[in-house]
Amino acid sequence: MGGDHGPHVTVPAALNFLRSNADVDVVLVGLRDAIEAELKACGARSNPHLRVHHASEVVLMDESPASALRNKKDSSMRVAVDLVKRGEAQACVSAGNTGALMAISRFVLKMLPGIDRPAIIAALPSIRGSTYVIDLGANVDCGPEHLLQFAIMGATLVAAVEHKDRPSVGLLNIGEENIKGNEVVKRAAELLRGSDLNFIGNIEGDGIYKGEADVVVCDGFVGNVMLKASEGIVQMVRSYIREEFMRSILTRLVGAIVMPVLHAFRRRLDPRRFNGATLLGLRGIVVKSHGSADVFGFARAIERALEEVRNEVLHRLIRRFGEVEQSEASS
Amino acid sequence: MGGDHGPHVTVPAALNFLRSNADVDVVLVGLRDAIEAELKACGARSNPHLRVHHASEVVLMDESPASALRNKKDSSMRVAVDLVKRGEAQACVSAGNTGALMAISRFVLKMLPGIDRPAIIAALPSIRGSTYVIDLGANVDCGPEHLLQFAIMGATLVAAVEHKDRPSVGLLNIGEENIKGNEVVKRAAELLRGSDLNFIGNIEGDGIYKGEADVVVCDGFVGNVMLKASEGIVQMVRSYIREEFMRSILTRLVGAIVMPVLHAFRRRLDPRRFNGATLLGLRGIVVKSHGSADVFGFARAIERALEEVRNEVLHRLIRRFGEVEQSEASS
Repeated sequence: MGGDHGPHVTVPAALNFLRSNADVDVVLVGLRDAIEAELKACGARSNPHLRVHHASEVVLMDESPASALRNKKDSSMRVAVDLVKRGEAQACVSAGNTGALMAISRFVLKMLPGIDRPAIIAALPSIRGSTYVIDLGANVDCGPEHLLQFAIMGATLVAAVEHKDRPSVGLLNIGEENIKGNEVVKRAAELLRGSDLNFIGNIEGDGIYKGEADVVVCDGFVGNVMLKASEGIVQMVRSYIREEFMRSILTRLVGAIVMPVLHAFRRRLDPRRFNGATLLGLRGIVVKSHGSADVFGFARAIERALEEVRNEVLHRLIRRFGEVEQSEASS
Repeated sequence: MGGDHGPHVTVPAALNFLRSNADVDVVLVGLRDAIEAELKACGARSNPHLRVHHASEVVLMDESPASALRNKKDSSMRVAVDLVKRGEAQACVSAGNTGALMAISRFVLKMLPGIDRPAIIAALPSIRGSTYVIDLGANVDCGPEHLLQFAIMGATLVAAVEHKDRPSVGLLNIGEENIKGNEVVKRAAELLRGSDLNFIGNIEGDGIYKGEADVVVCDGFVGNVMLKASEGIVQMVRSYIREEFMRSILTRLVGAIVMPVLHAFRRRLDPRRFNGATLLGLRGIVVKSHGSADVFGFARAIERALEEVRNEVLHRLIRRFGEVEQSEASS
């Protein structure tokens, strides 16, 4: 029900997803009437892999997480997360209110053993493919031990879904030298150097897009500002390009000729291809789609959830943090 | 002497600057032989507005600030800042080691009364023109009162050089609501709301490039990561565009047709036009050029210093913080 477009996006996205993933079961959770109207509008035929699960309430996009948790026990968000808790679904995908999704997921699913806080991880585009950044905004005021946990979680996820044996981990900082950074980051670097992760040291902001590490770790405040600023400057670049081509009849003509190249360029930078951020550290898989995602983007978020289920991210996390606890107990 | 190119860039940039600012005196500080060789190579004629001031040492780009301060008392950087201290120059412009420039400037010039720490401010491009961001990396681990000082300094500078009466001030945060952010930012917002600044509230990362405020205030760690990430993603976009146009003979042909439009686009986004960050809060004007700046970019940094001198930024800051102290004393 969530996001800027609700079922107008999520329902056709689920149908598209099912077309290329015919063996996966999809449960659409929310107001039955709205969902069924949308299914009808899409001309969906009855499908044993698709069912609607009614939920009578909707968490609003600007609702406080506390209010969503306390007052909306039959919201689509809550009911979907409950399905994961009960094992009736293996993952939940939502385009709704991020804070509410975080609070509900944490309350219902609980944290994995050994992990203090959930963190948001997503792949960003880089010259070499993609770079995963964790945390993108779940936690402000992180301690060094949280950054270490983010690193272990991120490396475990990337090892699973990207099939990399020992993904490289970088720490987001304001310089590459060890002496740089604030106190939390300096202590986190010590913890990372002492861990068994493939820690490659400090990474500056531009290192994310240069693909200098597979996983980049940061406080959620820094990660969120970085992500939003990146989105902002790309929007600015696009509007500049558009303006330059619209300047005169001549440049419009040139723009028409150049269209296929510009399209190829846009495709590569398309934020929809990177849609789907994972709330990591919970006893269940929860993927957050951008609220403004369209049908293509939301389907990508469902695919991300599927990749994480297929590659057993949850079991790997449990095993990994079990090892961490054992090595801490024996040391 | 500093930056990636030393006098090969700084000397011709100074000559270019003098061509459009014939009434300004320029002092080139550094190894006399290197500078005079470069002047000769540029075919510079003797000019009463241009002189060379010898300094026997050079601060290296990777030298620690402490070592530069302690061991290089006759470095070009130290001597140039000394000229400002003695009133023989009204501003110093350097493309050298940022940390060393900061340490030397702070040691030699001292802070303005009422200001605890220097901060780095620069204009970034926005859809509406430009947005000044402070701090871009001088201070990590800032307290709320530092962010308030940055806001006052930034607003004073922008009022002076952009001729805006009451520039709007935004606080960089991870959401627009008051409840968002880490503890430092929340307390800084309270201080800003209680100040006489034109505080418009929280700004997210994309708000910088949307031009939502004239001045955006943040901790230097966050500001630096944001700036570097922005540079990184723009570099990535450029390499994507280049690759797409180089893909085939056809796209190369299209690229040739489209060249003037792409040039216009590049000009608008040209980081050289925005070169020159000011170290604000010192008893003197010190402008830092990007180390990789070319002749055009370095000349822009000299022009920035000139604008700040002409618009009496230093006097305005002294007056402004005098008022702040008076109002604090009387309250």
